[in-house]
Amino acid sequence: MARLTEDAEGVYVIAVTPFTDAGGLDLASIDRMVDFYEGAGATGLTVLGQLGEAPKLTAAESRTVVERVLKRLDGRLPVVVGVSAPGLAPMRELSDAVMGEGAAGVMVAPPWTLRTDDQVYAFYRSVGEALGDTPFVLQDYPLTTNVQIAAAAIERIVRDVSTCVMLKHEDWPGLAKIAALRRASETGGMRRISILCGNGGLFLPEEMARGADGAMTGFGFPEMMVGVVNAHAKGEVERAQDIFDAYLPLARYEQQQGIGLAVRKYVLAKRGVIASAHLRKPGAALSPADIADVERLLERQTRRLAEIGA
Amino acid sequence: MARLTEDAEGVYVIAVTPFTDAGGLDLASIDRMVDFYEGAGATGLTVLGQLGEAPKLTAAESRTVVERVLKRLDGRLPVVVGVSAPGLAPMRELSDAVMGEGAAGVMVAPPWTLRTDDQVYAFYRSVGEALGDTPFVLQDYPLTTNVQIAAAAIERIVRDVSTCVMLKHEDWPGLAKIAALRRASETGGMRRISILCGNGGLFLPEEMARGADGAMTGFGFPEMMVGVVNAHAKGEVERAQDIFDAYLPLARYEQQQGIGLAVRKYVLAKRGVIASAHLRKPGAALSPADIADVERLLERQTRRLAEIGA
Amino acid sequence: MARLTEDAEGVYVIAVTPFTDAGGLDLASIDRMVDFYEGAGATGLTVLGQLGEAPKLTAAESRTVVERVLKRLDGRLPVVVGVSAPGLAPMRELSDAVMGEGAAGVMVAPPWTLRTDDQVYAFYRSVGEALGDTPFVLQDYPLTTNVQIAAAAIERIVRDVSTCVMLKHEDWPGLAKIAALRRASETGGMRRISILCGNGGLFLPEEMARGADGAMTGFGFPEMMVGVVNAHAKGEVERAQDIFDAYLPLARYEQQQGIGLAVRKYVLAKRGVIASAHLRKPGAALSPADIADVERLLERQTRRLAEIGA
Amino acid sequence: MARLTEDAEGVYVIAVTPFTDAGGLDLASIDRMVDFYEGAGATGLTVLGQLGEAPKLTAAESRTVVERVLKRLDGRLPVVVGVSAPGLAPMRELSDAVMGEGAAGVMVAPPWTLRTDDQVYAFYRSVGEALGDTPFVLQDYPLTTNVQIAAAAIERIVRDVSTCVMLKHEDWPGLAKIAALRRASETGGMRRISILCGNGGLFLPEEMARGADGAMTGFGFPEMMVGVVNAHAKGEVERAQDIFDAYLPLARYEQQQGIGLAVRKYVLAKRGVIASAHLRKPGAALSPADIADVERLLERQTRRLAEIGA
Repeated sequence: MARLTEDAEGVYVIAVTPFTDAGGLDLASIDRMVDFYEGAGATGLTVLGQLGEAPKLTAAESRTVVERVLKRLDGRLPVVVGVSAPGLAPMRELSDAVMGEGAAGVMVAPPWTLRTDDQVYAFYRSVGEALGDTPFVLQDYPLTTNVQIAAAAIERIVRDVSTCVMLKHEDWPGLAKIAALRRASETGGMRRISILCGNGGLFLPEEMARGADGAMTGFGFPEMMVGVVNAHAKGEVERAQDIFDAYLPLARYEQQQGIGLAVRKYVLAKRGVIASAHLRKPGAALSPADIADVERLLERQTRRLAEIGA
Repeated sequence: MARLTEDAEGVYVIAVTPFTDAGGLDLASIDRMVDFYEGAGATGLTVLGQLGEAPKLTAAESRTVVERVLKRLDGRLPVVVGVSAPGLAPMRELSDAVMGEGAAGVMVAPPWTLRTDDQVYAFYRSVGEALGDTPFVLQDYPLTTNVQIAAAAIERIVRDVSTCVMLKHEDWPGLAKIAALRRASETGGMRRISILCGNGGLFLPEEMARGADGAMTGFGFPEMMVGVVNAHAKGEVERAQDIFDAYLPLARYEQQQGIGLAVRKYVLAKRGVIASAHLRKPGAALSPADIADVERLLERQTRRLAEIGA
Repeated sequence: MARLTEDAEGVYVIAVTPFTDAGGLDLASIDRMVDFYEGAGATGLTVLGQLGEAPKLTAAESRTVVERVLKRLDGRLPVVVGVSAPGLAPMRELSDAVMGEGAAGVMVAPPWTLRTDDQVYAFYRSVGEALGDTPFVLQDYPLTTNVQIAAAAIERIVRDVSTCVMLKHEDWPGLAKIAALRRASETGGMRRISILCGNGGLFLPEEMARGADGAMTGFGFPEMMVGVVNAHAKGEVERAQDIFDAYLPLARYEQQQGIGLAVRKYVLAKRGVIASAHLRKPGAALSPADIADVERLLERQTRRLAEIGA
Repeated sequence: MARLTEDAEGVYVIAVTPFTDAGGLDLASIDRMVDFYEGAGATGLTVLGQLGEAPKLTAAESRTVVERVLKRLDGRLPVVVGVSAPGLAPMRELSDAVMGEGAAGVMVAPPWTLRTDDQVYAFYRSVGEALGDTPFVLQDYPLTTNVQIAAAAIERIVRDVSTCVMLKHEDWPGLAKIAALRRASETGGMRRISILCGNGGLFLPEEMARGADGAMTGFGFPEMMVGVVNAHAKGEVERAQDIFDAYLPLARYEQQQGIGLAVRKYVLAKRGVIASAHLRKPGAALSPADIADVERLLERQTRRLAEIGA
């Protein structure tokens, strides 16, 4: 399989991990999900992320998930695997294993204790050393990691750690950060890396305008991210925003901290992608009122999409 | 002036503090802003909040702002004044002063160091004792205060501190919390207090459905909050959502951490409400790209409002 | 091997994980270390804790460390194994494995994101369910976990989760918390659990006086903890404090955040307990000035111990 | 009064704010306390710090405290005033006022929200601009401010903000930071500023050895800090450590988070320095067991000081 490079673009969907109602891994749903994401226009997949419930899997289960996804894709799309761990040894262990099986690269979030620029830089420098020649994605998500990464720190990392090929950008706001990093490449000599954006896609049109290369997020309708990115690529800014706006009420609802993943799995199950919306503990369950909200938003979304011919 | 009670409802707009381009208080803009909010259908105003740049005002300026707003309103709408302070003595000092001038109540956010339920409870119990018979609003905004307040802690506070008459709710998500508090009133004997919602109104339709009494937030188009709350009061749930959806792309953009207030002031200045969009330091400035985003969103919003006849 | 119970007392030493200078596991040093701790009067050992560099071990290495320690002890002392993990599935996996090999119990620290009493309670309730009948230690260490656990939350956990048999107490301060928990047992009907104290032993004399059952910490001179606990058991309060005071200057120096573990390993290596003071990355190294400090403190400590006849 | 400069050294005692048992300001105790600190060998005083309960004072009370201290000292010792505030306008207001009355300088802690090096730098740059030519102390105390300040950020601040003349150093550990900053002055061309150390003096001997100029902290026995600093100045390293060790058990006890200030005021009241140990709310009260601890430690301290002839 080709390795992840700085040229990655499009939509890398953050895959959920499907469980049965009883809590076991649901391999058939993994296959269906992979097909669904591919059919929706994804250019890559990301597995074992936070929203893939990675921390709730045993080591053996993690390996099973990766193997199943890789087998189903059979090299048609690159797969990024989340390998964040409190220590470098287990991180390298998982990274080496999944790269050996055909992953394109890995993704690493910072431990929550990092604060100063030097601490962030030193961590990713160690990551680079530990992972050898495996290309990796720097995950910048202060809302859940508690770590704020300055553009200046990213610049130092990109300069000194050649295997850092992508930024998963979900700072909030981060429009200015994207712009700063692009300027650093255009006029400052910084290597240009891929920037894919998260945050459920809630700022995707604006992020594309600032120079992002696409999205890496898992909103239950990847059609939104694909539609926005593709329209943007064609220069159809208003069309991109029309598509975005139609999905926004639900995308916003899915971005709630705590129950967001339950909403996403509910939607994917309703769409027939996965068999069960089950989350492993600890994980929030939707109340009847939550479900009523989602159903209402889905109905309105369908109407609105018809109105704009999408 | 009537005091704030548990019956408060509708839309309490969080007022900005208008400055001149040179950074001084702009009293004429305060008058115009008060008229604008009143004309838009606000049922109350909140001044000296975080997004009113309260921490950037000297003590004398704070008093001036409150006096000017109260004078302009002349008792037609109740005014809530933010009095959060690291200590109880300065909090009481400001509270007594503004109540003496005619404020309806005060609002208190917790200091960032509180963690356990007991700590939160003890703090608000002390606040109640310090403020005497002044009615106060408990501000629950984990994203900026760093304090998570459990529904169980709010229940204890409401039970034991009779002057706590309102919850400014901007937990995220908080739909379950609103529902829990309403259940506690309906079946658990908890005093029913007013719940007004913040977060820029980003979950307002759903919050109203769970039992909120309205909004307390400062989105640059208070017409949105007024429209949603009023439609909801008439049982027009779909109409409420139509209005909400039309404003959502801009409301979302204004909710960015860091530059949100700059967006709000830009919009208010553009609408002629305040003379200058100036923020005092420390405060973010909009880049040309940010302004282009806002202008584009405004244009689309105008079109969409026309389409839905709002 | 006997399982950990509420009656545990004395000194459970937090074991370091010895590495060679090249960074590999040093099994011979593990044996020597186990003998040393046993000879110093430990009543139990705790392995794979934070200060055992557990997060830096691969899964296989973790198992090797536990096996080696258990084999060397051959059942003479109980062993507690740290199994903290972001998810319940990997936690249970490690727990089941080490209990099968003869561990006496496991220790679980809370994930850094927990805040309210309900969140803490719900987490440990889930832990209890996940671990089955394995007895576990609740680790209360706000300084490194970022989680403050109220005495009231501990009471709820002890009441509802019968396999929670010990509190590793290192809140700071926590003297009042120990007293509150002992009162809850004496007059409130709460099951009395074992309380062993951490924080490098820096408050051990006072903790014993409030009702602690001993220490669980890893100061390079376990003789201190053993001496204090034993003297206290004989009612020799002043003697306990004499011993404590003699070790305090070094114990304080070892409690520095960041380089504390490097100091501890330096001391253990100097004492011939482990072959190398090596820390795996990320881990601080001592500067020449740090080493000079330690050497000076060691010399003074030797003199002072002679003066008091200890 | 002479202004604070980079040459400041010795012991700046952090003054408590004495209250009556009823909670009012106790001006007579302020006088006595000032005399006591001066008599103990202080080279300066710091008022309105966190441990001076500054946040619990009204604006008028704050002014009264400063005036009283300045009047009593009559220019014999320099006074630093804590002016930390959420906004620059109120900070400048208080700073200008106290400088006008004769303070030597002010002290500013960072707001808890700062994270990256740039954010810290930008904040102190703004502080410098806001305060005009008033010399100020940068307070680096991560344990209570939640802000970690890298040595690199301090270097940038010192280079660009000429009125930053002192670092109040209470990072933990910070021995390496002191050494780095001294190296930056000796070989890197950074302006040499004064470094006075806090943390209750718990690392004072080692801090002096790394290049600190003295202490700025409020331990109830300022004789300790004065003794250590003076012995160190004479090159009597072992004597400095003898004095330090004799006070260490109590100094450690006073460093407990939460009740530390109550211990300090208890000691000062017992010594006859202040009339009442009263703390304003919110503030912990000592339990009978706490008091018994302190009394026992005081007795032992007296004996030990006699033994070493101090």
